[in-house]
Amino acid sequence: MGLTIAQKIIKNHLLSGSMIVGEEIGLKIDQTLTQDATGTMAYLEFEAMGVPRVKTERSVAYIDHNTLQTGFENADDHRYIQSVAKKHGIYFSRPGNGICHQLQLERFGIPGKTLIGSDSHTPTGGGIGMLAMGAGGLDVAVAMGGGAYYIPMPKMVKVNLTGKLAPWVSAKDIILEVLRRLTVKGGVGKVIEYGGEGIKTLTVPERATITNMGAELGATTSIFPSDEITHAFLKAQGREADYIPLASDPDAQYDEVVEIDLSALEPLAACPHSPDNVKSVSEIGKMKIDQVCIGSCTNSSYLDLMRVAAILKGKTVHPAVSLSIAPGSKQVFNMLAQNGALADLIASGARILECACGPCIGMGQSPNSAGISLRTFNRNFEGRSGTADAGVYLVSPETAAVSALTGVLTDARILGSAVDIKIPEQFIINDNMIIPPASEAEAKDVEVLRGPNIKEFPKSDPLADTISADILLKVGDNITTDHIMPAGAKLLPYRSNIPHLSNYCFTRCDEEFPARAKAAGKGIIIGGTNYGQGSSREHAALVPLYLGIKAVIAKSFARIHRANLINAGILPLEFENAADYDTVALGDALVIENVLKDIAADKPLTIRTASGKTFTATCALSQRQKDILLAGGLLNYTREQSK
Amino acid sequence: MGLTIAQKIIKNHLLSGSMIVGEEIGLKIDQTLTQDATGTMAYLEFEAMGVPRVKTERSVAYIDHNTLQTGFENADDHRYIQSVAKKHGIYFSRPGNGICHQLQLERFGIPGKTLIGSDSHTPTGGGIGMLAMGAGGLDVAVAMGGGAYYIPMPKMVKVNLTGKLAPWVSAKDIILEVLRRLTVKGGVGKVIEYGGEGIKTLTVPERATITNMGAELGATTSIFPSDEITHAFLKAQGREADYIPLASDPDAQYDEVVEIDLSALEPLAACPHSPDNVKSVSEIGKMKIDQVCIGSCTNSSYLDLMRVAAILKGKTVHPAVSLSIAPGSKQVFNMLAQNGALADLIASGARILECACGPCIGMGQSPNSAGISLRTFNRNFEGRSGTADAGVYLVSPETAAVSALTGVLTDARILGSAVDIKIPEQFIINDNMIIPPASEAEAKDVEVLRGPNIKEFPKSDPLADTISADILLKVGDNITTDHIMPAGAKLLPYRSNIPHLSNYCFTRCDEEFPARAKAAGKGIIIGGTNYGQGSSREHAALVPLYLGIKAVIAKSFARIHRANLINAGILPLEFENAADYDTVALGDALVIENVLKDIAADKPLTIRTASGKTFTATCALSQRQKDILLAGGLLNYTREQSK
Repeated sequence: MGLTIAQKIIKNHLLSGSMIVGEEIGLKIDQTLTQDATGTMAYLEFEAMGVPRVKTERSVAYIDHNTLQTGFENADDHRYIQSVAKKHGIYFSRPGNGICHQLQLERFGIPGKTLIGSDSHTPTGGGIGMLAMGAGGLDVAVAMGGGAYYIPMPKMVKVNLTGKLAPWVSAKDIILEVLRRLTVKGGVGKVIEYGGEGIKTLTVPERATITNMGAELGATTSIFPSDEITHAFLKAQGREADYIPLASDPDAQYDEVVEIDLSALEPLAACPHSPDNVKSVSEIGKMKIDQVCIGSCTNSSYLDLMRVAAILKGKTVHPAVSLSIAPGSKQVFNMLAQNGALADLIASGARILECACGPCIGMGQSPNSAGISLRTFNRNFEGRSGTADAGVYLVSPETAAVSALTGVLTDARILGSAVDIKIPEQFIINDNMIIPPASEAEAKDVEVLRGPNIKEFPKSDPLADTISADILLKVGDNITTDHIMPAGAKLLPYRSNIPHLSNYCFTRCDEEFPARAKAAGKGIIIGGTNYGQGSSREHAALVPLYLGIKAVIAKSFARIHRANLINAGILPLEFENAADYDTVALGDALVIENVLKDIAADKPLTIRTASGKTFTATCALSQRQKDILLAGGLLNYTREQSK
Repeated sequence: MGLTIAQKIIKNHLLSGSMIVGEEIGLKIDQTLTQDATGTMAYLEFEAMGVPRVKTERSVAYIDHNTLQTGFENADDHRYIQSVAKKHGIYFSRPGNGICHQLQLERFGIPGKTLIGSDSHTPTGGGIGMLAMGAGGLDVAVAMGGGAYYIPMPKMVKVNLTGKLAPWVSAKDIILEVLRRLTVKGGVGKVIEYGGEGIKTLTVPERATITNMGAELGATTSIFPSDEITHAFLKAQGREADYIPLASDPDAQYDEVVEIDLSALEPLAACPHSPDNVKSVSEIGKMKIDQVCIGSCTNSSYLDLMRVAAILKGKTVHPAVSLSIAPGSKQVFNMLAQNGALADLIASGARILECACGPCIGMGQSPNSAGISLRTFNRNFEGRSGTADAGVYLVSPETAAVSALTGVLTDARILGSAVDIKIPEQFIINDNMIIPPASEAEAKDVEVLRGPNIKEFPKSDPLADTISADILLKVGDNITTDHIMPAGAKLLPYRSNIPHLSNYCFTRCDEEFPARAKAAGKGIIIGGTNYGQGSSREHAALVPLYLGIKAVIAKSFARIHRANLINAGILPLEFENAADYDTVALGDALVIENVLKDIAADKPLTIRTASGKTFTATCALSQRQKDILLAGGLLNYTREQSK
């Protein structure tokens, strides 16, 4: 039987398990990346493992999240990451150099390789045929130490693209269409492979927009073949040698096939407050807007911004609209500055922000209260923009740019015939903002610089046989990691300070939760379906751990967050009968007995309420995951393993 | 007797008083400017006056302070200012367009005119021969309403420049030399006029660097003649019609003359934590640095950044240094983007920030803890950078750029012969980010948009005859408005929310002060010399007013802050005998009797301590100032006047 692209890469990297859907497999990881908001914790964990030098082919530490620097914490963390990277064999991308995923694609990604990153949009690398996955910081630390990365063997989905996009319809509209059809839960446990003649019309940055935002499907990852278009991109990046062709076998089997006719697509927008709440721009109509933000790892490539510049050239941003543009990388920024496009953007009145994630993660440019913001980003969760009552619409750069001129949501097709913008034959290559690690000989003399913001990693205990605790919180469906552990400009600087963060855990759902949890000392959280969707931040598990959460009982979990809970030593339990969700309430005392025996026997756990009623919850775990939970988390487990 | 430049402008604008040094004079104001951090309050005050349309020749509202937007407050305030400006005849400069002083110089300033601005660096306009002064927001509101602006008639100081700067020695070094000689108190009650053959070697942006940072001398303002160099600048800005020549009379009399031989100057730096703590770069030596920030209203002109680009071209920022550059205006930014210099800056690894005040006001780019930061800015007060224990050195752009490459404080003269960078014959002129006000006919239909961050103006009571209150705080010399009312990224967004700000008043000196003041309900502050130096922020008076402060007794006051205290209805008292400062302590109960009678009679006030001892304090006031205090502040006074 033929193999899909992902199956081929998995087969080449399989360290344990068998390639049967749902079974846990261990993969050899070739490359890792971190960003700074998750990176400080990942490197603290890596240091705790005591491995002197990373064992991956390439590990890169990027600074792209905490770049506003409204206190000493950010610069301290940057210095910590820069020095720890230098000491342990990791490349360091300096602040201002750009967004990790854009840079990884430009400078480091290699078709056929595996990549995990402590950022949920790591699947961007699938745009050049990498198996690239978001992971918790501790998973990345383990991979840097040479350990395997474990996932349930995913199902294979083929998205078959036919036809060709109409002028001013964009790669962003393709992934929005996929989200409209599959929803934010549609990709769970699946790899989404793009194929069909339509992919030949898509450049690498366009493919990367699609794989990037595949994260919003909940997918394990998304991937494109590596073909002549990939070859041209790598060549233009001076990396022709990294090219290999990669395609699925003609007789590869898929669990699901989605057909999309590109010619039939029109400009789309994800409406508040979910990336799958997708409507067409024409259906929404000429809605008045207050803000437009262009950038993020989804849409900040040379191609994206050249199209934006072509739309804005010689015109002026509407007086009621604030337009900000953050280029994705120094390479993109430099090229726009050199070819005059940046002058066009500036002249139009765009506010040019530093090359970084910026407003996508709520790091600045919060809209006015109750404001409507069009963003070329990947997430529009409530409050993520920094303004609690803002309405964020996710759109293509083309839709964003033309709407910035008109002041209302506008279908870019009014622009008429397309502008002809091509990927350059040669990008500007200047890696002077990437600092290579010290040689092995020099590494021992490198001092790791620690600032006062870096606090201890929270401790966890081995799993108990009886868990007796109250329900401290009950939440609904599709709870995001932004609900669990809010980010944004006010909290991201504290990503290496769990005690401080704990004061804000779940406060978007219930302001009293942190105080209640601290008073109780221990507790259980009840969730709905797709609990923990969104970013890869392990803080959404570490902070509950710090607050004494012993178990989360939900209808279902998002993949990365579930792994993060296990890594933190918190039980992720699924209601065997979803209706039992309705029988429990905030404050109920629960008792879970025989935890160790039932988990060892793969039996559902029985949970007794104060009224004496019981219900059951499952916890599908590999042996490795059982061992991690028993040890009280992956860090304890890894320490024990290395004894 | 001949007149100085300032005396000529004052004579042309004199509405009340006589030109006798120290006597209060009332000036007709031609132009006003506001920035957003002080502007929201100024426009709230303007609205409270009930004047439908500004009576100035030109009033401009700029957005340059709160541009990070880490919450809804900033965007709400921008919308408020944009709409209130449109309604009342004020030009609005949109966020991203640049820094108020740079823009006012480029697009609006006119030699011989008077300008007041609710920002202490308004004297920048002196670079083209304006009488440009920093003022409280309420003063600006009164001026917009057609009222006079009152100052004590200043002394005249001549700074006579001879010779020519050596290559890589900069206009910044001239003003640092003036600060070194005169100190931060040296300009109080004085106008500093620059003259001598040396001024012919200085372009307008260089002159503006000098007048800008004259604010740090405590001067009323600084001024250059308007000559052929001014003419060329205005012509290059498409404003030749605004030019008039302006010079002092040959027989003008000065109270003081300072001689500076430009050829003898070397690169200087103001060391932590005062702008007058000036040493030569060579004297300080090759100090290791962590950060370099280039920009601010002092040093972000086309000329400054072209020189920086020439230094950085083809090189790479030192790996241990974070270099950020914020162009001063869209015009500057656009020109650098068009001529390739911006590409050079980006290529070198500089972090390009939005055109705004940015790190100069602690709005981002806080250094690492205990970090050393070289900045081309104007103030290096402790903690202003956002990092409490950072050490900030104020230097020229040339010193900053070359040091960013070497990683240590470096004398730019190592670069050898100068690069030849000239003011362009024609700047790019594109005012599309400046929105003109509505016509008088349309204005009534303009709706003023108010966000939930805008709270009420604090109320004040008419002056009481007996003030009986405890000393709630005793501070030393040179207390800045940054001590009184900290700014920075965390507090500047709340400039229209006095109740919120009050929780941070004086917390850099004494964390307990706000709670103590709220518990006491009323109180007195004891200060040393030069109390209230620094910015023009009236919040440093309004917040103490909100906290019940009735009087500040100090050895001496900075001009703008003293006026702000009077405007807020707080008594600014000066120890008649400075030694009495040592006889009072925190917590002492003070009683001031016969306040109304003694003030009316220009008699020193007698202050009785709990032990029965007395001391005296003066309060030199014009009749207008007495009336303001009696009314309980300028807003009450203005309302009464208009009845």
